[in-house]
Amino acid sequence: MMKWWGWGSVDVEFPMAHKPALWPWICEQVGLPAEAEPTGPVPRSAVVLPEPVVNTAFLGAVEKALKPEQILRGEDERLLHAYGKSYPDLLRVRRGQVDRAPDAVILPAGHADVEAVVRAAHAHGVIVIPFGGGTNIVGGVNPPGGERRMVVSLDLRNMNRILAMDEASQTATIEGGALGPKLEEDLQRRGWSLGHHPDSFEFSTLGGWLATRSAGMQSDAYGKIEDMVVSLRMVTPAGTLTTRPAPRAATGPDLNQMAVGSEGVLGVITEATMRVHPNPPVRAYHGFLFPNFEAGYQAIYECATGRFPPSLFRLSDARETDLAFHMKRPDTGLKALVTGAFKTYLARKGYAAPCLMIVGFEGRPEAVNPLRAGAFGILKKHQGFHLGTKVGASWSRDKYNLPYLRDYVMDYGVMADVAETSTVWSNLLPLYHAAKKRLEDRFRADNKPFYLGCHISHTYKTGASLYFTFAAHMTPGRELEEYYRYKRLITEAFVTHGGTLSHHHAVGIEHQDWIEREVTPTGVRALRGLKAALDPGGIMNPGKLIPPGD
Amino acid sequence: MMKWWGWGSVDVEFPMAHKPALWPWICEQVGLPAEAEPTGPVPRSAVVLPEPVVNTAFLGAVEKALKPEQILRGEDERLLHAYGKSYPDLLRVRRGQVDRAPDAVILPAGHADVEAVVRAAHAHGVIVIPFGGGTNIVGGVNPPGGERRMVVSLDLRNMNRILAMDEASQTATIEGGALGPKLEEDLQRRGWSLGHHPDSFEFSTLGGWLATRSAGMQSDAYGKIEDMVVSLRMVTPAGTLTTRPAPRAATGPDLNQMAVGSEGVLGVITEATMRVHPNPPVRAYHGFLFPNFEAGYQAIYECATGRFPPSLFRLSDARETDLAFHMKRPDTGLKALVTGAFKTYLARKGYAAPCLMIVGFEGRPEAVNPLRAGAFGILKKHQGFHLGTKVGASWSRDKYNLPYLRDYVMDYGVMADVAETSTVWSNLLPLYHAAKKRLEDRFRADNKPFYLGCHISHTYKTGASLYFTFAAHMTPGRELEEYYRYKRLITEAFVTHGGTLSHHHAVGIEHQDWIEREVTPTGVRALRGLKAALDPGGIMNPGKLIPPGD
Repeated sequence: MMKWWGWGSVDVEFPMAHKPALWPWICEQVGLPAEAEPTGPVPRSAVVLPEPVVNTAFLGAVEKALKPEQILRGEDERLLHAYGKSYPDLLRVRRGQVDRAPDAVILPAGHADVEAVVRAAHAHGVIVIPFGGGTNIVGGVNPPGGERRMVVSLDLRNMNRILAMDEASQTATIEGGALGPKLEEDLQRRGWSLGHHPDSFEFSTLGGWLATRSAGMQSDAYGKIEDMVVSLRMVTPAGTLTTRPAPRAATGPDLNQMAVGSEGVLGVITEATMRVHPNPPVRAYHGFLFPNFEAGYQAIYECATGRFPPSLFRLSDARETDLAFHMKRPDTGLKALVTGAFKTYLARKGYAAPCLMIVGFEGRPEAVNPLRAGAFGILKKHQGFHLGTKVGASWSRDKYNLPYLRDYVMDYGVMADVAETSTVWSNLLPLYHAAKKRLEDRFRADNKPFYLGCHISHTYKTGASLYFTFAAHMTPGRELEEYYRYKRLITEAFVTHGGTLSHHHAVGIEHQDWIEREVTPTGVRALRGLKAALDPGGIMNPGKLIPPGD
Repeated sequence: MMKWWGWGSVDVEFPMAHKPALWPWICEQVGLPAEAEPTGPVPRSAVVLPEPVVNTAFLGAVEKALKPEQILRGEDERLLHAYGKSYPDLLRVRRGQVDRAPDAVILPAGHADVEAVVRAAHAHGVIVIPFGGGTNIVGGVNPPGGERRMVVSLDLRNMNRILAMDEASQTATIEGGALGPKLEEDLQRRGWSLGHHPDSFEFSTLGGWLATRSAGMQSDAYGKIEDMVVSLRMVTPAGTLTTRPAPRAATGPDLNQMAVGSEGVLGVITEATMRVHPNPPVRAYHGFLFPNFEAGYQAIYECATGRFPPSLFRLSDARETDLAFHMKRPDTGLKALVTGAFKTYLARKGYAAPCLMIVGFEGRPEAVNPLRAGAFGILKKHQGFHLGTKVGASWSRDKYNLPYLRDYVMDYGVMADVAETSTVWSNLLPLYHAAKKRLEDRFRADNKPFYLGCHISHTYKTGASLYFTFAAHMTPGRELEEYYRYKRLITEAFVTHGGTLSHHHAVGIEHQDWIEREVTPTGVRALRGLKAALDPGGIMNPGKLIPPGD
């Protein structure tokens, strides 16, 4: 489990000491005085949880089906399951504010346990919130404020096995609670890989990925998580849905794609048969510099829509590139990049505000080599300056560290958050410029120094994703109010300018106000129809994804 | 429109005269005496349609919104929309048996017309059956027997335009009624292609493909129709669903994949934005012979799961290969194959019961050439004997002819039908053998000479499709009863042995008895929930896909 007040393992902090250029640069970006003193979260002892609601009939039924050690009612577990890891979540929990926590945490040991718990919950009117790794940043695992029924957080951490491998079919049947690193290790030991590495990889689970339509870094090669599902089992209050393991079918609406993305509001995904691939012997990440964002975009566009699509593209705009440069450790290849001489050289060549691209290739050498040669030809044609693999290795090493940095800056009253979307190629740069301008204009109008960077990643034949990171110092006492001004503004910009409400973070609570515009009122009606059919008592993760009815 | 009594254009018949070896061979297969005389369908004048049900309030509302020429109530149009093209459909209509026909055929000119018709139908309790090209073979366009409400067949034939091209994003927005040949011609004129060529291509439409999860022959390269959808509009009685054109999203269950495969029971798909690709300069189809089905399977498996997946694979088993050989025209490359000398040569080399493979490559030469070289290496390793491109060209020319052959043999009392499924690689050959054995055993137990052939096609990383064709002479007067013994038996074999109920023919009426086993009762409940939400009055294509409730 992660820290109750922030991201990641209790014994891990952002390695600021190894990045001497970073803190002064951050302070400058967000207008923080260099002498600012950090304020940590309140001590654990200051966090008071609300009295638990106890449904004794439900507990009795569950105690009959499960072992005592599977039913946790202690305050530490309740606190750990009270929030996900969004900025508002962390802001509240760091203050010690817990208005509603789960009343119990239940650890099923397998599919049958989940069926028993959901059956009992349905019979006795108890709320069930599926919980994977708790990394959700849209409010997806939070108990609904003011909920008077008993709330159970159903934590699948012990359902983490590979149940079956079908090597001939290149599929693995995996339990929903399988955590990224262990799952990938289990697969790689057998010579296979799922190849799904979202930013949350270290602390998130297969079930969570499926429930939120997660995207891994190498999605260009392996697809988003929904592209890898062959079949699944989902326990709903109306019974268990089991789909057939087949590559494709013509048997009505795709029920896999109904369960995927359902965010726990229809049921609990207990297992899934996933497409896997032979563990690639080559995993190469290269850095390139482009003179501007447009040139890098053109290079990505030509590769992704043509014959040489890499397994990973990540093109940072100038400001995100600046952040990356300041993340350098003295011992990495990035060191050279920030030396004065190299900067002068780049500026003279037209790279005054360079944009960093990470491009990744995975597979067997005989497949990777021609692909890489073809892609490099295109990148260079668009003025891509090859930095070699050290930058890529450095990026790969640091890639899971950014959420720790958010905790670090929050100690100084700095809000840091992300917003992501996707759109078709013809709209990608217009959407980028529109969203960026709206947020920048607002920060400037508010007279607030800010950081706003973006990268293009997750490419497809028809389009790609945009991923923004933004940070600013919040006025003490007005953090949430100020935060939502910016968060809502950029979300609004996405939806207004033809982007999706989310490419891979899901809807939860935070994006719910826009779901009707995203899928039209008829789409929301369809979702309500599904919910009514599979969860007639409204016990599954209520208040998420689907807005309250009339 | 097609013939009222059979497949295809009124002026086209199966070119039996050009295939001198075929008819004697067929007679031998199904035990038909060579001197058998054909009996055609009853004359058009002998077909008596039931009196139309007229809902004057509905007609009044529609007449206000549409032009008079859009509302057809003549008997010829009603008859043409009374059936699809399944064997039972044709059997009944050839006898002149029409128990229920649509009471009117309405031709919307655009999305707004569809909205007006569906709104009026919902208000006045009139059944709406969306109609594309009418090629459905699972009962998908048939009015429900005994329906007392007015039934409208909503024929989208005039909604056949490309509404927008987004060349940068490689997408085209197309109306649902666009017919295969015209659509492909319109796209190719602009330099693009959808690349979707199902067997029904000449007479089927985009909306029909989407509603039934159709698969084109080159699906290995371009995916099934559901893989090409970027966004769509579907008119439902509860309003219009419009999804966002984005490559991927994380905004709940995928509503594109809910509309796709919905077989008209939720609404009418009026337009869709589809992924297209540059019209390939190379379209090459090669023939290969394998000594047996297993060797060909191994070759396909290695290509499809590895680095050299062609755009089309079609491996016939020995008996289907025999049929292909007898389809030869004197002027094709297949001629040599049936000469005695060549057969003797093959037999000596171990190809006593050879299996024909068609393998296709599409794209730019620089992409096709290395792919073809790699694939050929694998095919030859598995004893593939390269027959050149004449066989491929012959196959390509004849590929849309088989449904005409069915009409031809029906004149002689011969039933001919197809059944298709898909499964994961590890189960493909076991499923093939199991389904084949069950049907063969039954034909033999019935003492009925028969034809039963199969091909593997539509490959994926995790599996492929099996496509069976079977034929036998039916006892006069017992055709339907006998037919359903075989049809139900092979469907049962698919579902029992781990196959899908259908890979690309859909559910309709014919497969409905198995849908609960296919998707579990919870899955059916989900479908009913969707239906209740979007079509609360139950007017959209009732009786299809979803079995009647309790």
